Amino acid sequence: MSHFSRIGVVSRVDSPEAVRTAVELVDWLGRRGCTAALDEETALAGGHPPPYFVPEEGWDLVIALGGDGTLLAAARGLGGGAPILGVNLGRLGFLTEVSRSELYPVLVRILDGEYSLEERSLLAVTLTRAEGGSTSHRVLNDAVVGKSVLSRIIDLAVSTAGGPLARFRADGLIVSTPTGSTAYNLSAGGPILDPSLPVMVLTPICPHTLTLRPLVVPDTTWIEVRLESRADEVFLTFDGREGTQLAQHDRVRIERAPERVRLVRVRRRSFFDNLREKLRWGGLEDGKGRLV
Amino acid sequence: MSHFSRIGVVSRVDSPEAVRTAVELVDWLGRRGCTAALDEETALAGGHPPPYFVPEEGWDLVIALGGDGTLLAAARGLGGGAPILGVNLGRLGFLTEVSRSELYPVLVRILDGEYSLEERSLLAVTLTRAEGGSTSHRVLNDAVVGKSVLSRIIDLAVSTAGGPLARFRADGLIVSTPTGSTAYNLSAGGPILDPSLPVMVLTPICPHTLTLRPLVVPDTTWIEVRLESRADEVFLTFDGREGTQLAQHDRVRIERAPERVRLVRVRRRSFFDNLREKLRWGGLEDGKGRLV
Amino acid sequence: MSHFSRIGVVSRVDSPEAVRTAVELVDWLGRRGCTAALDEETALAGGHPPPYFVPEEGWDLVIALGGDGTLLAAARGLGGGAPILGVNLGRLGFLTEVSRSELYPVLVRILDGEYSLEERSLLAVTLTRAEGGSTSHRVLNDAVVGKSVLSRIIDLAVSTAGGPLARFRADGLIVSTPTGSTAYNLSAGGPILDPSLPVMVLTPICPHTLTLRPLVVPDTTWIEVRLESRADEVFLTFDGREGTQLAQHDRVRIERAPERVRLVRVRRRSFFDNLREKLRWGGLEDGKGRLV
Amino acid sequence: MSHFSRIGVVSRVDSPEAVRTAVELVDWLGRRGCTAALDEETALAGGHPPPYFVPEEGWDLVIALGGDGTLLAAARGLGGGAPILGVNLGRLGFLTEVSRSELYPVLVRILDGEYSLEERSLLAVTLTRAEGGSTSHRVLNDAVVGKSVLSRIIDLAVSTAGGPLARFRADGLIVSTPTGSTAYNLSAGGPILDPSLPVMVLTPICPHTLTLRPLVVPDTTWIEVRLESRADEVFLTFDGREGTQLAQHDRVRIERAPERVRLVRVRRRSFFDNLREKLRWGGLEDGKGRLV
Repeated sequence: MSHFSRIGVVSRVDSPEAVRTAVELVDWLGRRGCTAALDEETALAGGHPPPYFVPEEGWDLVIALGGDGTLLAAARGLGGGAPILGVNLGRLGFLTEVSRSELYPVLVRILDGEYSLEERSLLAVTLTRAEGGSTSHRVLNDAVVGKSVLSRIIDLAVSTAGGPLARFRADGLIVSTPTGSTAYNLSAGGPILDPSLPVMVLTPICPHTLTLRPLVVPDTTWIEVRLESRADEVFLTFDGREGTQLAQHDRVRIERAPERVRLVRVRRRSFFDNLREKLRWGGLEDGKGRLV
Repeated sequence: MSHFSRIGVVSRVDSPEAVRTAVELVDWLGRRGCTAALDEETALAGGHPPPYFVPEEGWDLVIALGGDGTLLAAARGLGGGAPILGVNLGRLGFLTEVSRSELYPVLVRILDGEYSLEERSLLAVTLTRAEGGSTSHRVLNDAVVGKSVLSRIIDLAVSTAGGPLARFRADGLIVSTPTGSTAYNLSAGGPILDPSLPVMVLTPICPHTLTLRPLVVPDTTWIEVRLESRADEVFLTFDGREGTQLAQHDRVRIERAPERVRLVRVRRRSFFDNLREKLRWGGLEDGKGRLV
Repeated sequence: MSHFSRIGVVSRVDSPEAVRTAVELVDWLGRRGCTAALDEETALAGGHPPPYFVPEEGWDLVIALGGDGTLLAAARGLGGGAPILGVNLGRLGFLTEVSRSELYPVLVRILDGEYSLEERSLLAVTLTRAEGGSTSHRVLNDAVVGKSVLSRIIDLAVSTAGGPLARFRADGLIVSTPTGSTAYNLSAGGPILDPSLPVMVLTPICPHTLTLRPLVVPDTTWIEVRLESRADEVFLTFDGREGTQLAQHDRVRIERAPERVRLVRVRRRSFFDNLREKLRWGGLEDGKGRLV
Repeated sequence: MSHFSRIGVVSRVDSPEAVRTAVELVDWLGRRGCTAALDEETALAGGHPPPYFVPEEGWDLVIALGGDGTLLAAARGLGGGAPILGVNLGRLGFLTEVSRSELYPVLVRILDGEYSLEERSLLAVTLTRAEGGSTSHRVLNDAVVGKSVLSRIIDLAVSTAGGPLARFRADGLIVSTPTGSTAYNLSAGGPILDPSLPVMVLTPICPHTLTLRPLVVPDTTWIEVRLESRADEVFLTFDGREGTQLAQHDRVRIERAPERVRLVRVRRRSFFDNLREKLRWGGLEDGKGRLV
């Protein structure tokens, strides 16, 4: 008797190998007595007819095959529903630490109940248009207001529940969860955050104001970013992939989402173990990525 | 009837004006019916005989005259006892936001009960010597392991409750409270932290390992820093002022202290208001500290 | 008898005040015996019929009214021809240090021969399309390969005359002259360069490779940047304003242009004086933009 | 007939293996008909009586066994005399690119004339005491004014031939050659400089003034650093090893030295090849030191 009975499988669709693995995996799960199916996009990419994955219907496990990006997309789609197992088909990821070769042995253990769940916070991002109307989104990594390299510099005004915070010129602003702190935030000079922390980090992208620095705030506050300047090509993105164009005086409000994502964990590897390996913090031995 | 009855006054002792103000303040408090006294060092600097300030004896308010450094010293001495009011005799500080000219009007309000208390966490720093023995200290801003500019580069190994974190070469490592995040941490490239957050930040000083980056961790963990290399002049400092020399294999353990510091607040100014003013985040108007 | 006889006037065209000033200036110059005219775009913005400014025809002085951006556009248009005088109608610029109120007194001196010329190097940017064809451009500040915030991360390969230099993922890469070092380069973490230096600086924008750092090379070499990844929205920009879209395997070659720009200087202010004022390096007095 | 006839050998003296290699090397050179000897310090460390190395007497090649530090010390001692061959006994260095295993094959080629010489600039550092007197030093990497971690923050005033540049608070200031740009300068956030450039770079160490940034200036100017504040433990160091204590109002003048160091090169490796290998700029393949 399996620990999970209804399992959805999602995959990168631009990798035929990933899609093939997803199809195999559905078959394998079926043979082990689970109800398993692909999501619609993966099913179409694999030339398989529906029934496909329907997140609203109550899967109790989702397996994401690809990289961190695939898992991020699944998490946004689920909006805090079923636990997610991330399987990386390339390099070790921060979110997808199970490798392709470990997939089936690890699944055997998970179906036997040998796993733990790690909760990660999501951000709720509400875009209110200057001309009226609003939309809402969930992100696991970050919400970014940024300009095209072609457009002129933009002016942003940032407020929190405590009042106005800053007005500045920059290429943009990243508001990141702890989970997202090792993604775009780190490239832009932001700090690494333990993923369990109840915080958000605001990191400006290439600010003109040289005294602007990354700022970590409680996730019990909210952040509002207003686009002050007229600008042709300014966008709001969700986890770095999906996005929408902003107009002058549009307002983006970011706060902790009520729901959370649950990641399935089977290894003893901690977040810090990943850091040590990916960023080579582990030792002095090899002399690489280091100066003297 | 005053809201506080036993009040200690401490001052920068290298500023005759600060000491003079402290003496005046004791007199003024006495005329208003409070039991007030200087601490020993201020009393000696002012040529005044004891009875002096005895923190162990139960003052219920301490007034620190000077800058943030004076308040830090008082907070370390008190170890979480009486509330502290910081008065800056020079520039606006992050901790000492009452200016000299506001001193008496503000005190009238405080003695009438018009104030709030803001709690700040302290770190407990335990130094365990390789050759045996250990000592313990409190810091409100930061504990720093750092080398003299004359000594060779040092190797540090850092662990947390979750296991080993990193081994690296650097000039040193800062472990800072949120309160200290705007002090040395910021100069070394660390992020600004909301002072209410339950976190510590680890920021390497001039690391040779270019992938080392500031790291924010929960203050429910502990940090252990071991000096791995032989080194002539490596020091552990407390809030940037006091310190002690380290020897190879000495270990420094840093964790949240059980006690907390309480700051007396009378103004509506928030931490973010201070940031906006001190770092000029407030607007685009003046064009200073900015490029275009 | 004026020191310059044929003078072109260009202006920001999105500022009616700038255009009005340009028209007045042409009249003023005419009354002083100079042959003066607007460029076509300014003339149209001002509702004035041609004859307008024709750079190809041999003006011996060009006056740019606006900000650094107006001067950059004029310099690119001239391609190293007539000397340029920059007049800022707003804040002090790095290139346009004469203010509106100083305009006429300064011009009197310039027409009397009281000025000096400061040469600045230009970069020649040659874009060779993977599908054939190439175009060439001049920049005074920088050439930037950068992606839209909506597009996925891009892979860039950089070579110099000495061989391959780096392959990396980033938001983009800035190749800047010393003149441009205080513009986008500085926001992205690059160093400030004395404007007289015979160098270029390569500064990655938000690199994923944390060991990538700004690199200063002689301007006697060339830089080639190849876009390795497929990407929807990657652009090459010239001085941050004009630009063109890039496709996979397009190559951008950047080298010192044979011609140089000559700036008209009338003040004793040095580049360092501008730095001191704009970045507040001048002293410890005011305590702004500084922490303790 | 050897291309060099009088050869000095210097070694790290804290490594018995390095000293043993030095002694062997002198014997080997002797058997090949060269006049070879140790320098005094290496000879004493090896228990060998003089005749030892006397730099003043006209060696025509110096071989430095150890790391970049050993070569730096030899270069300072020679002050621009004989060419230097650096042999690293540990990791690949920026200056010592010949490894232990390559030592004898490489020397055979060098003695046959198969080598090139690469010139590197030195800085002349003149310390003028507030109380009178001055001393002069040579550095190949950098001159650093820095404080002990125990001492209070210091105020520095920096001028160049062009006038005052900045007054600021910091842990210190690095003035580096292009050769030194990959050493302390890089750890402190400075740019990498092509070693052939006629420049110096000024990089503040942990500045309180957040708008202070690394600055590259021509090596035809001079830099003067004055210690403005009273401070107990402020030092001036030369190439990070030797140093001297500074007092208030001491002045340090730094300019290009008239002599230059000549490095013996036998490999085709360029500076950029070293960068690629040491900093892992070479590619996207291994996914280490990188985030996504």
